[in-house]
Amino acid sequence: MRSIHVDTGVADALAAFEMPQRLGFGVLMAPVMYRCQYQDGRWWDAELMPYGPLQIDPAAKVLHYAQEIFEGLKAYRVDRDRAALFRPQMNWERMNLSARRLCMPDIPRDIFMQAVQTVTAYCEDFIPRNSGQSLYLRPFMFGTQPDLSVAAANSYSFLVIASPSEVYHSGSMRVLVERNDSRAAVGGTGAEKVGGNYAASLQSVQATLAKGFDQTLWLHPSDRRHIEELSGMNFFAVMEGELHTPALSGSILPGVTRDSLIQLARALDITVHERPMDIDDLLALIKSGTCTEAFACGTATIVSPISVLGDADGQVYELPDTPGPVARQLRQALLDIQEGRGSDRFDWMSPIPPECYP
Amino acid sequence: MRSIHVDTGVADALAAFEMPQRLGFGVLMAPVMYRCQYQDGRWWDAELMPYGPLQIDPAAKVLHYAQEIFEGLKAYRVDRDRAALFRPQMNWERMNLSARRLCMPDIPRDIFMQAVQTVTAYCEDFIPRNSGQSLYLRPFMFGTQPDLSVAAANSYSFLVIASPSEVYHSGSMRVLVERNDSRAAVGGTGAEKVGGNYAASLQSVQATLAKGFDQTLWLHPSDRRHIEELSGMNFFAVMEGELHTPALSGSILPGVTRDSLIQLARALDITVHERPMDIDDLLALIKSGTCTEAFACGTATIVSPISVLGDADGQVYELPDTPGPVARQLRQALLDIQEGRGSDRFDWMSPIPPECYP
Repeated sequence: MRSIHVDTGVADALAAFEMPQRLGFGVLMAPVMYRCQYQDGRWWDAELMPYGPLQIDPAAKVLHYAQEIFEGLKAYRVDRDRAALFRPQMNWERMNLSARRLCMPDIPRDIFMQAVQTVTAYCEDFIPRNSGQSLYLRPFMFGTQPDLSVAAANSYSFLVIASPSEVYHSGSMRVLVERNDSRAAVGGTGAEKVGGNYAASLQSVQATLAKGFDQTLWLHPSDRRHIEELSGMNFFAVMEGELHTPALSGSILPGVTRDSLIQLARALDITVHERPMDIDDLLALIKSGTCTEAFACGTATIVSPISVLGDADGQVYELPDTPGPVARQLRQALLDIQEGRGSDRFDWMSPIPPECYP
Repeated sequence: MRSIHVDTGVADALAAFEMPQRLGFGVLMAPVMYRCQYQDGRWWDAELMPYGPLQIDPAAKVLHYAQEIFEGLKAYRVDRDRAALFRPQMNWERMNLSARRLCMPDIPRDIFMQAVQTVTAYCEDFIPRNSGQSLYLRPFMFGTQPDLSVAAANSYSFLVIASPSEVYHSGSMRVLVERNDSRAAVGGTGAEKVGGNYAASLQSVQATLAKGFDQTLWLHPSDRRHIEELSGMNFFAVMEGELHTPALSGSILPGVTRDSLIQLARALDITVHERPMDIDDLLALIKSGTCTEAFACGTATIVSPISVLGDADGQVYELPDTPGPVARQLRQALLDIQEGRGSDRFDWMSPIPPECYP
């Protein structure tokens, strides 16, 4: 393993940390963080530090031109003695796709793994152990070069912070179809996890909440008909017992949970269709009763049933308020693996190597 | 004027500052900066501080979801005793359009003006005085709330930093038509000055440079035919002595220099057409000799002639390597006003109030 400098303040930060009763999602930050910096064409030694403010130059590229990417993954310790990460390899691979899209350097595999494993190991005592809870890990990288020209930076910080968390959205969701705004352009950054996608989505999310809905459903930015995803979650529907999800179009994020659910469904003999899904067809199929379930999925939310799809014209299309049989079956199968009750038949769980522990 | 706290380190920072021989653009940072913070639904007292690193929480929205906007404007002191700003009201108005698009609070006019005027006043001795040089001012605002949920922040920092600068791009430019990537989506953030637009553009800019060109020319994200803008610059062409520029489409940045050139051209009895401009028509008109000039404009670059338009198929369309008569006339008329030689007939120059000086 690469050498890592453990800051003298880490032991005190761990000792001083207290877990509150209510966790929420992404609000309580774990007491340590990992940082590795890139400069002069190479990655330098990594540090494990107490969680705290970063010193960033006011002219750093990240603050002006949003040269920033991130990932989200979870460490579980519900029915396990020791923590385990869910499919970190997928996040590492995707993070480097995002890095390339924004002209940032690749993150070597050993740095990425050291980062998520070390933070998990040091925070093992703070991983909550009720079903649905986990340590949410947030790897991110941004351009630090202080220079106002519009060009890729020559220096970067890669960090991992973490948050002991509940599930992001519990209960069913009311989802509003976004007919005007787009999340990302064709030939844009929709398939990568870059900050600008989320900034662009805030206006629609705020309007959605003001209308009494929970999430925006985005359509293809060019044809404005085909379903893409929710903000940070992929979309699934069930018709006649079969699972349908939008095919990856080049502007949809290839979700780790999406991929896992497709594999699980196939293993459970549920037919899966990855295909272009027209929103008007879907709404008609909900109305006619052919579509019996819809749900969103993602690392933060796991599987969230959609109880209402609202259209811009004010029409609402209702589905059962409780998870349907397919959503329930898939969610349970996934959680059984993540939380350590089921057999890890796909080899998805990644233990923390002993040398990562303090 | 609002009260402002001047940090005790400011005098030393000013005294220690030295101007190098070569300035470049946006590389040399002025020794002071302005900050005003928004929290609990209000703006707090402003500070003038020595230029230096900001303390930013690792979970701040700006580092993950790119909730960040910026502006660019210039203070001139070429043929003037005292510094003057060019049309700061336009930047203030546009910055608030960007703020609303990203669900950020409006910046009150008195804070914005205090910021750009105070930084200019304190840096007056460092404003270079050769034609084309200026103090480039960079107002920017970003979300500081440390919370990983995808939602607008409840706290913000608004800053102004500055850079004594040369013109961004001198000489003529070779421009490559981007037929694949998009800069911003329909219903996206193309008309606002938000970080994510620039991050998304880096890949194309890098490919453009690798092919021996200087800038990317972006087309409409949906029809892929109509000219939008270059990265951070608007586009103009001259045909039979008349000026043509793409009409603001909702995904083009409404440039201050663009607006100024249109007003100047009309005052000089040059006919101006703001209209949709098809790239294929334009290329044919360059080939036939009907289009005799093309140029880009922007705050940083002022007016830059385009000598070559390259297409994705490898074809190149050549224009004169030196500024044509219309570009030259407009550039000179604009610089005469900015640099203090010509009459300020449009009331564009904004002096610095005496109370802003140290």
